[in-house]
Amino acid sequence: MEVPRSELQWIDRIQALAARSPVRRGMVLGVGDDCAIFRPRAGEDLVFTTDLLIEDIHFRRTYAPADVGHRALARGLSDIAAMGAAPRFCLLSLATTANTAPRWIDNFFRGLLRLADRTSTVLAGGDLARGHTAITADIVVCGAVARGSALRRDGAGAGDGIYVSGLLGGAALGLEKGPRKGGRAWRRHVVPEPRLALGRSLRGRATACIDLSDGLTLDLHRLALASGLAAEFDAGALPVFPGASEAQALSGGEDYELLFTLPPEARSPRGTTRIGTMRRGIAGRITRNGRAITPAGYDHFSAGTKSAG
Amino acid sequence: MEVPRSELQWIDRIQALAARSPVRRGMVLGVGDDCAIFRPRAGEDLVFTTDLLIEDIHFRRTYAPADVGHRALARGLSDIAAMGAAPRFCLLSLATTANTAPRWIDNFFRGLLRLADRTSTVLAGGDLARGHTAITADIVVCGAVARGSALRRDGAGAGDGIYVSGLLGGAALGLEKGPRKGGRAWRRHVVPEPRLALGRSLRGRATACIDLSDGLTLDLHRLALASGLAAEFDAGALPVFPGASEAQALSGGEDYELLFTLPPEARSPRGTTRIGTMRRGIAGRITRNGRAITPAGYDHFSAGTKSAG
Repeated sequence: MEVPRSELQWIDRIQALAARSPVRRGMVLGVGDDCAIFRPRAGEDLVFTTDLLIEDIHFRRTYAPADVGHRALARGLSDIAAMGAAPRFCLLSLATTANTAPRWIDNFFRGLLRLADRTSTVLAGGDLARGHTAITADIVVCGAVARGSALRRDGAGAGDGIYVSGLLGGAALGLEKGPRKGGRAWRRHVVPEPRLALGRSLRGRATACIDLSDGLTLDLHRLALASGLAAEFDAGALPVFPGASEAQALSGGEDYELLFTLPPEARSPRGTTRIGTMRRGIAGRITRNGRAITPAGYDHFSAGTKSAG
Repeated sequence: MEVPRSELQWIDRIQALAARSPVRRGMVLGVGDDCAIFRPRAGEDLVFTTDLLIEDIHFRRTYAPADVGHRALARGLSDIAAMGAAPRFCLLSLATTANTAPRWIDNFFRGLLRLADRTSTVLAGGDLARGHTAITADIVVCGAVARGSALRRDGAGAGDGIYVSGLLGGAALGLEKGPRKGGRAWRRHVVPEPRLALGRSLRGRATACIDLSDGLTLDLHRLALASGLAAEFDAGALPVFPGASEAQALSGGEDYELLFTLPPEARSPRGTTRIGTMRRGIAGRITRNGRAITPAGYDHFSAGTKSAG
């Protein structure tokens, strides 16, 4: 393998990797100019998200680099899913370190592009720089949705049911157990699967939606706060990932499932569980069996602090 | 000043700062949901760029934080100018460090938003994380241009004149002299002015365009390579910033002027200088008085190495 030695050579390499992707919808010009050019379709809104992925915070160098690439894109795609949108393209900024092997970067892009292909997301551009001690990736994803139909977090109504997809706490359990003992839970942590099909199916049905990136109680707090309502957990069981604790399910974070609300008369979509009800009350307040719960989860800013306050 | 202590509080603060901006063109939803929502206009192409700004590589902590915020956005806007586009919105990902003062972050956003307001760019979202030892910002800027009219770097024809705007080498001179002795050159380095009006005026006239981020010879090499042509410097003088050396003008980088080509019969737009002619020959080859010049400038990847090879 020839080792790229300059930015120009890296751009060539990434262009070559990206060119294998058959998906080109809407992209007039991809990697290699000052800007990528995208031609929107009539009648569509575009949605945009950006997510930082930092070594020793969101991943470790011991992870398979292809998994890190997957993870960088999956986090952005999960936000696209939460809006009910279909992904169109992504941009990737990558700050490497002096000791990042070219093979690491190559495999990072291979993992990212594999997920990009599978989800019809074009890698349209980005930036490469040599940084300091921690590899830092920033992913931007653009999705499209029929005009006015994007799911938001501020539309829940009093009486709406609260639902989650999948099983919660798996990512936290995987992180706790590590790659050797974590099994399926470890995969949940490392290579989360964005719930794009579910998100799209919720358009016109869900009144509000958010992805579970930072922990159920914290993300529910955000949805409730945005909707100006309180939220009450039903007495029934949470859908807990096998082996995970209730605390991991409630505040572990990084499950990248969808949390959404449906009108009172709605039925659970397949693969989802009703976990509570939106109520009039103090905006953002969460109760369980009548008792207030302090929203807790991963706060990206005050890392280590686990509270929304 | 109340000090934000959590990501939620920072998002509130940034929302409050961004809300002062009067510009909302096309933004349906800004900071605060999983994604920002943008409604494109009919008949427009959108252009996207992303640029990393890393402490101790692209700026130092001793710089005024408002200037760093300006600089982060200006680099992205310069790419938008090079496409002949009008900026629409930006997204900003910011990884801070344990020792970043809240006031630093506030002033960073104030500087960024001041330039955003002045250029009609909406701050539509982003990400905040606590990183490690170096503040790292990644700016994404979206611009709009009438369908099919974006300037690219691959359209130059043989015989086209090569032009640059402004004076070159000022940023490199400023960086060399520092804040106390650098005067106007220091300001060129710290708070570059993106050439948005010139870029827009070149639509339908310029055959190719690129912004001067990495040094004249390196960026000219890129334009020539993309256009499949060689480039020849005219014998005439380069427009050198007062006090800068010819080497600084040729390869200093970060001047954020525009480098573009016009058909043979065209006249220089005001404030620009003709510096050469596109020629048939080895793609990307640059000559001056008949001698080949090795393209040199700042390579973001192999920092310190100054060659395009």
